[in-house]
Amino acid sequence: MIDLHEIIGLVAAVLTTASFLPQVVKTAKTKDTSGLSLSMYIIFFIGVLLWLIYGVLINSLSIILANIITASLTLYLLLMKLRYK
Amino acid sequence: MIDLHEIIGLVAAVLTTASFLPQVVKTAKTKDTSGLSLSMYIIFFIGVLLWLIYGVLINSLSIILANIITASLTLYLLLMKLRYK
Repeated sequence: MIDLHEIIGLVAAVLTTASFLPQVVKTAKTKDTSGLSLSMYIIFFIGVLLWLIYGVLINSLSIILANIITASLTLYLLLMKLRYK
Repeated sequence: MIDLHEIIGLVAAVLTTASFLPQVVKTAKTKDTSGLSLSMYIIFFIGVLLWLIYGVLINSLSIILANIITASLTLYLLLMKLRYK
């Protein structure tokens, strides 16, 4: 069984990840990456990878899942930025 | 002493929070909130509050600190959006 605190974490993960999706959808549709800051996204990506490592170290399912998805979406935006800059 | 995993978490917190700051600084300077989606920021804010509760429940200093700061910055952007919309 999943603990109550893990359910709260998973809902948190869904909400914060969902709020990131419109940027991804917009960039995928328009290929316009002029509004995205490359340096800021690189810093964010490294931060997300460290959160992922942290999640593994403290054995938190919510943090691991949230940051695998966010890292994937951020990597996609970074690749779009590099391709269409 | 702070554990190694908590140091990784705190560095992650600094990086992901830092990458959020340019938006806050830009909005504070320009008062232009037309690029901010109110509904997305409300969803994100609720998600961040749930992460904060999750951090308290699993006793994670990194998650608590990161989400107190992010919640404050997001609340500021939300108030700016409501004031200057």
